[in-house]
Amino acid sequence: MTVSAESNASTFGTRLAAEFAAKRHLCVGIDPHGLLLKGWGLENDAAGAERMGREVIAAAAGVAACVKPQVAFFERFGAAGFTALERVLADAREAGVLVIADAKRGDIGSTFAAYVDSWLSPGSPLEADALTVSPYLGFGSFDRALDHVRKHGKGLFVLAATSNPEARALQTARTAEGTTVARSIVEEAQSFNAYLRRLEQAGAAPEGVARSLGPVGVVLGATLDLEEFGIDVAAPPKPAMPVLAPGFGAQGARIEEATSIFGALGGSLLASESRSLLTGGAAGLAERIRARADALAEAL
Amino acid sequence: MTVSAESNASTFGTRLAAEFAAKRHLCVGIDPHGLLLKGWGLENDAAGAERMGREVIAAAAGVAACVKPQVAFFERFGAAGFTALERVLADAREAGVLVIADAKRGDIGSTFAAYVDSWLSPGSPLEADALTVSPYLGFGSFDRALDHVRKHGKGLFVLAATSNPEARALQTARTAEGTTVARSIVEEAQSFNAYLRRLEQAGAAPEGVARSLGPVGVVLGATLDLEEFGIDVAAPPKPAMPVLAPGFGAQGARIEEATSIFGALGGSLLASESRSLLTGGAAGLAERIRARADALAEAL
Repeated sequence: MTVSAESNASTFGTRLAAEFAAKRHLCVGIDPHGLLLKGWGLENDAAGAERMGREVIAAAAGVAACVKPQVAFFERFGAAGFTALERVLADAREAGVLVIADAKRGDIGSTFAAYVDSWLSPGSPLEADALTVSPYLGFGSFDRALDHVRKHGKGLFVLAATSNPEARALQTARTAEGTTVARSIVEEAQSFNAYLRRLEQAGAAPEGVARSLGPVGVVLGATLDLEEFGIDVAAPPKPAMPVLAPGFGAQGARIEEATSIFGALGGSLLASESRSLLTGGAAGLAERIRARADALAEAL
Repeated sequence: MTVSAESNASTFGTRLAAEFAAKRHLCVGIDPHGLLLKGWGLENDAAGAERMGREVIAAAAGVAACVKPQVAFFERFGAAGFTALERVLADAREAGVLVIADAKRGDIGSTFAAYVDSWLSPGSPLEADALTVSPYLGFGSFDRALDHVRKHGKGLFVLAATSNPEARALQTARTAEGTTVARSIVEEAQSFNAYLRRLEQAGAAPEGVARSLGPVGVVLGATLDLEEFGIDVAAPPKPAMPVLAPGFGAQGARIEEATSIFGALGGSLLASESRSLLTGGAAGLAERIRARADALAEAL
């Protein structure tokens, strides 16, 4: 069903659009946190993290839209943790499961390019389909990643409005142009997707790269009032923009309210859930993922 | 001269203060970029990166104030790159060289705690003395790292005002309280250092943790007009706050102007230089580092 990332015809945008078309909107987090590993009866080490990751891949394949390994929980084991993560990523590629590496990287110039090489270059041991990035250095600092998005059909999710209360002051700050920081991130992501669509239409970007869905998405917390962040959810962006939204499930946002929370952005929603699915161990994991995926399919 | 990081009496703040007292202000970047590796006659792989890193440690020991491995250039080799970085960090510990891991990490809650476990926990394979962090999720998201700063005597450098032009709109945006984003980061860092000093004076934090120098510093580009970012450099913070400043050397800021650029913050300046020192290969590296360290000692 899903095509290999190596295929030219397959881009992050087209693959994710196919997931949405099949009514798959669940993004399963892979968070090998110490307490969760304990609950799974696994050691709090790289082997435990690898085991959890591979179990999640197996359970999510064909049911969830994607998986999202939280890199921090692998990184804490150093090189051994990255070896574990490489194996998890290899499993996902083999199973045809879309992967968003949740690394929240960000830097400038050739240094950011090195992060892009790590996570979005075909053939890299840490190759994923998309990467989360943190924009304190400005959306423009992602230029090199945007180039990979275009050339290799990769995806990017930029932090915009996050649900942790200590982020509000910064993300609602107003730029000299009068927009909030969060809104400017959303607008820049939309502009890039629109630009890419024009390139595609002109034959200057791979076919499908931004046809039905733009490859640059944003992270928006589902528990937020997005208006407070100055984000306009009334106007549908063209092309549609993926929204990675933590906050459903354990954190309190109700999936039935997704449309009222995300408005015109709700059609391309990836509901990210981790602990609510991972708690309870490997036994029953596939059932929990399927139940949640079904609930999302029904609500959206 | 420098004491081991394992010693209770030794904290990042006291060790860095000792460097400044000895008039050492140079921070040598370890940036195993492909072109630099080529210039060194090394392969563009993990072994090449390790070799460059270990040569820099050997050349910087006792001459520079610290070294700053740029994690992105190791990460691009996946687990193999982290194995290389672990060896470079082990060399630095053995040589007593202070290390700032330039990873620009940032996340919330227990996820950020996992990054802190990776980089600032005693005994972690990636243990460094300090870590650069990116504050898009708010200064408050670093709570757990600040805890390690207090307990383990570690340091943190928070991005505040960076020299890349695409960052200006965000970093000069004004919060609801009317301060710029960059200024609010600087103020929060200063507040934390002052709080830690009070804890220390009350016997509730390790001796020396914030006596002469606070352990939380900021990253400020040397090529900027800091007034444009709303940053007040006239008032000396108490305790003094480390400032990690890229931009001297190749990027055009003159070290002789450090006092006019950084004002009262200039006394605790770490001038970060990478390419200007690394270009030219391993031959002559020690001489280039020494010459630059001497120039800084004279100018500051």
